Amino acid sequence: MEGTGLLPTSIVMPDLKINPERLHADFVELAHIGATPEGGINRLALSANDIHARAWFADKVESAGLAVRDDDAGNLSGVLYSAEPGAKTLLLGSHLDSVPNGGQYDGSVGILCALECLRTLREADLDLPINVEVIDFTDDEGCWKSLFGCRALTGALAQEDLSAINYGEGSFRAALMQVGIDPRAIWRASRAPQSICGYLEVHIEQGPRLHREGVNIGVVSGIVGRTTHRVTFFGQAGHSGTTDMYKRRDALRGAALFIVRAHDLVRERYGDGIFNCGDVTVEPGMFNVIPSKACLTVEYRHVSEKLMAEMETAITSLAHQCAATYGLAVETEEIAHMPAASLAAGMIQLLEGVCDDLDLSHKRLVSYSGHAPQILADFTDTGMIFIPSVNGISHHPDEYTDWPDVVNGANVLLQAILRLAHRN
Amino acid sequence: MEGTGLLPTSIVMPDLKINPERLHADFVELAHIGATPEGGINRLALSANDIHARAWFADKVESAGLAVRDDDAGNLSGVLYSAEPGAKTLLLGSHLDSVPNGGQYDGSVGILCALECLRTLREADLDLPINVEVIDFTDDEGCWKSLFGCRALTGALAQEDLSAINYGEGSFRAALMQVGIDPRAIWRASRAPQSICGYLEVHIEQGPRLHREGVNIGVVSGIVGRTTHRVTFFGQAGHSGTTDMYKRRDALRGAALFIVRAHDLVRERYGDGIFNCGDVTVEPGMFNVIPSKACLTVEYRHVSEKLMAEMETAITSLAHQCAATYGLAVETEEIAHMPAASLAAGMIQLLEGVCDDLDLSHKRLVSYSGHAPQILADFTDTGMIFIPSVNGISHHPDEYTDWPDVVNGANVLLQAILRLAHRN
Repeated sequence: MEGTGLLPTSIVMPDLKINPERLHADFVELAHIGATPEGGINRLALSANDIHARAWFADKVESAGLAVRDDDAGNLSGVLYSAEPGAKTLLLGSHLDSVPNGGQYDGSVGILCALECLRTLREADLDLPINVEVIDFTDDEGCWKSLFGCRALTGALAQEDLSAINYGEGSFRAALMQVGIDPRAIWRASRAPQSICGYLEVHIEQGPRLHREGVNIGVVSGIVGRTTHRVTFFGQAGHSGTTDMYKRRDALRGAALFIVRAHDLVRERYGDGIFNCGDVTVEPGMFNVIPSKACLTVEYRHVSEKLMAEMETAITSLAHQCAATYGLAVETEEIAHMPAASLAAGMIQLLEGVCDDLDLSHKRLVSYSGHAPQILADFTDTGMIFIPSVNGISHHPDEYTDWPDVVNGANVLLQAILRLAHRN
Repeated sequence: MEGTGLLPTSIVMPDLKINPERLHADFVELAHIGATPEGGINRLALSANDIHARAWFADKVESAGLAVRDDDAGNLSGVLYSAEPGAKTLLLGSHLDSVPNGGQYDGSVGILCALECLRTLREADLDLPINVEVIDFTDDEGCWKSLFGCRALTGALAQEDLSAINYGEGSFRAALMQVGIDPRAIWRASRAPQSICGYLEVHIEQGPRLHREGVNIGVVSGIVGRTTHRVTFFGQAGHSGTTDMYKRRDALRGAALFIVRAHDLVRERYGDGIFNCGDVTVEPGMFNVIPSKACLTVEYRHVSEKLMAEMETAITSLAHQCAATYGLAVETEEIAHMPAASLAAGMIQLLEGVCDDLDLSHKRLVSYSGHAPQILADFTDTGMIFIPSVNGISHHPDEYTDWPDVVNGANVLLQAILRLAHRN
């Protein structure tokens, strides 16, 4: 994945800019599709609103004179084809789907900035040596299966995922078929890595760092890995009044100690790491019975796979210590693991060069949320451009980005496309 | 409630003993009613099994030549009436109902020991100056309304309890009516305190102290008060990956700190106090969302009402400290409060004297579980006799007491009746 060969040797059309008003008009139109009373967006993957947004996108692609393309996983694209036979394709992605009552920017700005870049390039009548393709990935938010579309495209859907869709996950299968996707043909969405020359995505930061520091652009250096565990403490139920206070084996007491210490441990030892305990269920859960069982959902994230492994060891060991403190047993079970991804060094340097030339302040950032580039990074040279989120609010109707920041993101993407095109 | 006037001046029939085989035969018969496959008992109050046990009890009362008595709260008694007009009544109580899949001893041994005492007294053909009444209190275990029967008898059911039964609690009302109890007449079950000269109850300890120390009899000095609170921590939901780790307002983190510290606080400052957090519910409860709300069910117990009040202040203050530590808000709400009860000093001394005379080792104990004497103590001179529970197991099919310990309890009760009769 080293991308140093992609370093630009010259710059073509450094003054080419996207059309901010046209981009804004698109943004306003799209924000009406699935709008909620609170000012958010409901466009769950494969829902009527999602399909409505896709139809709107396909119309925009056609009216811009670009080619509409789709694949067997429902990924929907607009392509500016190169005249050169056998040209490779630069993918520019994001997603039109949203979480329930999500924000207007997440996903949408990535699609709209890329679409605007393609329109700008077409109007400039450039003869590019590569195909440039804006792609809407199916179910990026994981309403059905997290990062489904980009995993299908990169061949990262395991055989067991495909089997589950065909034989187990009836409601997902029905949702796919309802929109014309044949579950048995999903595998055909995968593309040959040698046909792709890179992947770029503009996205809001979904965190407060750029906004707080007044930085224009975040150049994403890596995306955190995420591991989810179920941690279950086992004690012994008993009458809360009559059981000796010094002989209790209270599962919740051990679980509470673990929650407190795990938060402290991650902050003390893994400064860039993230820990969350999002839920606890207690059995038998009666006010006058000592808890016999406390089951926690625990998640941790780090950008370094090595430190992820260390965190796992430390957190598991802590769970055992806390259990031993109160005479409990403990079991930990991995529910999910999404590995950490480092983005291509060449892409990072290219994007930083573009920012410098556009006089935009920039900063390398780790992404603490999962994104398609996490999947694409193993498949092709991948870069990601963050723009500021006001107060870092995301997945919420209050999600907001100042319009000039969106325009900056689009212009960085445009110049990055030109540099990559020049190198291929 | 000082009972020093009850101190015995002489002893009548110190060699009178109950019939252990007859008592055991009763125990075996009763244990069949509502028996579960695990060896436990299902006799929820007002259920068919409870009614079956009551009918069995009434038969036993009648065949012993005692009078059957019932009242408008469904309390069912066998009475050995005195020949003296205007004689006061000594109540000997417990309950035939059980918790779901409870043990064979809880409640039952109290009724059976008292019944056996009455039979023994009748056979001895004594002319007692008091009526002696064995009473089965309705719904002692609180399947419908905790300590319902004894609260009705002592007039401790508040007007709002009665209104709730008549106008709100439809299923309880239906259950009462199905067994012939008129909900509008419950108030008539209350008795005049001056008609009662005392209350005694034999009960298994439901804790391990007597069994562990090899002591025959526990003389209960007081019953802990119990307060139940709902403690709710309020934080702010957010994306578990992208929200700054140092700016999170994680409701569950504060709740966990509170659970850990409250357990430590009660052990450090209130050696005889009890603390339990029996349940936690988390909102939104998703693995990748910072908890915005954590609601705990918290219960504490102490035999001193003064220290109960201190504990309440300390625990509430701790909740606020823990909330402040992580920038949270907290609300505490009292769900229930059952005041602590001190049993009559005269009864305690009388029971200790009986044990000494019977060569039984004894020990003053606080009861950490609620019992009818908690209600009766405000109404009449009340004493309670604990017999050992093997390993303290209770409310469970494994509940067990060695038979000689049950016999000891019955004989202590018998001699206590004689002493009290002599004093009246």
